[in-house]
Amino acid sequence: MTNIQHIESRNNGKIRAFKKLKEKKHRTKEGLYLVEGFRLLEEAFKAGKTVHAVLYTEEKEEDFSRYIRPYIEREEVYLASQDVIMELSSTVHPQGIIGIVSIDESSFTDIPISYEDTSLFIYLDGLQDPGNFGTIIRSAHASGAKGIILGRNTVDAFSEKVIRSSMGSIFHMPIYQNGEEMLSRLLAKGYQLAVTSLLAKKNLYHEDLTGNLIVAIGNEGSGITEEIAQKADTLLKIPMPGGAESLNAAVAASIVLFERVRQLEWTQFS
Amino acid sequence: MTNIQHIESRNNGKIRAFKKLKEKKHRTKEGLYLVEGFRLLEEAFKAGKTVHAVLYTEEKEEDFSRYIRPYIEREEVYLASQDVIMELSSTVHPQGIIGIVSIDESSFTDIPISYEDTSLFIYLDGLQDPGNFGTIIRSAHASGAKGIILGRNTVDAFSEKVIRSSMGSIFHMPIYQNGEEMLSRLLAKGYQLAVTSLLAKKNLYHEDLTGNLIVAIGNEGSGITEEIAQKADTLLKIPMPGGAESLNAAVAASIVLFERVRQLEWTQFS
Repeated sequence: MTNIQHIESRNNGKIRAFKKLKEKKHRTKEGLYLVEGFRLLEEAFKAGKTVHAVLYTEEKEEDFSRYIRPYIEREEVYLASQDVIMELSSTVHPQGIIGIVSIDESSFTDIPISYEDTSLFIYLDGLQDPGNFGTIIRSAHASGAKGIILGRNTVDAFSEKVIRSSMGSIFHMPIYQNGEEMLSRLLAKGYQLAVTSLLAKKNLYHEDLTGNLIVAIGNEGSGITEEIAQKADTLLKIPMPGGAESLNAAVAASIVLFERVRQLEWTQFS
Repeated sequence: MTNIQHIESRNNGKIRAFKKLKEKKHRTKEGLYLVEGFRLLEEAFKAGKTVHAVLYTEEKEEDFSRYIRPYIEREEVYLASQDVIMELSSTVHPQGIIGIVSIDESSFTDIPISYEDTSLFIYLDGLQDPGNFGTIIRSAHASGAKGIILGRNTVDAFSEKVIRSSMGSIFHMPIYQNGEEMLSRLLAKGYQLAVTSLLAKKNLYHEDLTGNLIVAIGNEGSGITEEIAQKADTLLKIPMPGGAESLNAAVAASIVLFERVRQLEWTQFS
């Protein structure tokens, strides 16, 4: 393991640089993001993410030794003051550990080709709420999706809120930043594009979702863009027998993802 | 319409009293809660809620006249300063209108008895996140559920975050505060209690959910309590072919609610 260095002051140059990673602009520029808390950081290591640095406080020596130290090879490790952790933290009660993790570049060529199974991707078409984004990543991971494709005007994937609400699933789901290219290439490969729409006529439960599929999820307020709706092979409607006009975006996405799980399971049993 | 009174100072006695409604303790004591924004307040009126008072700023006279004035009968109406609205608001950019709405007491005797349809209730067993709560109310409303039953240690239903994330569905869903009594009475009436559990063996998609049903949703971290698990007729597992260990609580609830929608629709078609 590398030597552990001490950082006491939040004005330390490294800390000032790390703090900038709270902003999307700097995350994109540096290709790094902050991961806070033992459970999430351990999950990042387990998932094989490249961790650039780890900072923890003296009081958390035991937790560090137990959960994080076993993974440390060449990572920079800092014993930091409470002040320093507070400076980098986004929570009211910091857990005393923060990691600096590399953003993986996922691209079309990474997609495993399977001749046995069909694949599912989620395309985010202007989704804005980080909590919804994290929840969608978690559902996508649970449902066996192969990745998340970021369309235009979609909120950044590597903010603290997205990571936290993904419950660590973000470390397991490829995130395709170059969304429009990725979408075109999958469509060219024969993938079907399905979108949920309040104006749709096709009932979700009557459609076959078991093929190679991209599910697009729109903006919380305005839904799917005209551009994506026109590319879609199917406009799906989730039947709502009650009075509400619409569902939360992450809920609508998850209902479609798990209807696919149900259909796939059915075909396996029959 | 009643006379419109002016309130300039946030130290006004009424304002100090209304501000206390940001806390659960005072909401429960007064039987009142705050509703912020034109869309939500209009929805409260539309749903027939009892509105005690409305406060709005001069700049919003036009929106007030258009969306809210048509509903005003004996409600107290105040033209308030920006300062006053800021004092009562829970958002960074207040919309310039706040209503004080009465908490309805829903009880067992309100439940409509139907000999044609089956009914669905949601029982919240220690749910803690207000955003999840609001999202569940919205999904419950969309799926045609008859009400939400609050179990022990469940977060308050009338906080600003719950109301906002319910997107107004809270005004349409009966909320049963006396949860344990309500649960006992429904069970005595022959309702089935289903809970989702990561330890369950019964696959959600193989179970019949079309009868009179209560779906219980547990705490975000610790799940269903032992007490409720023991009362349950069915422990349901949502199949997760991917790697994630669990789903967001509101997502899990919604997947069960909409699997019931699917099954009911199926029985109607066949």
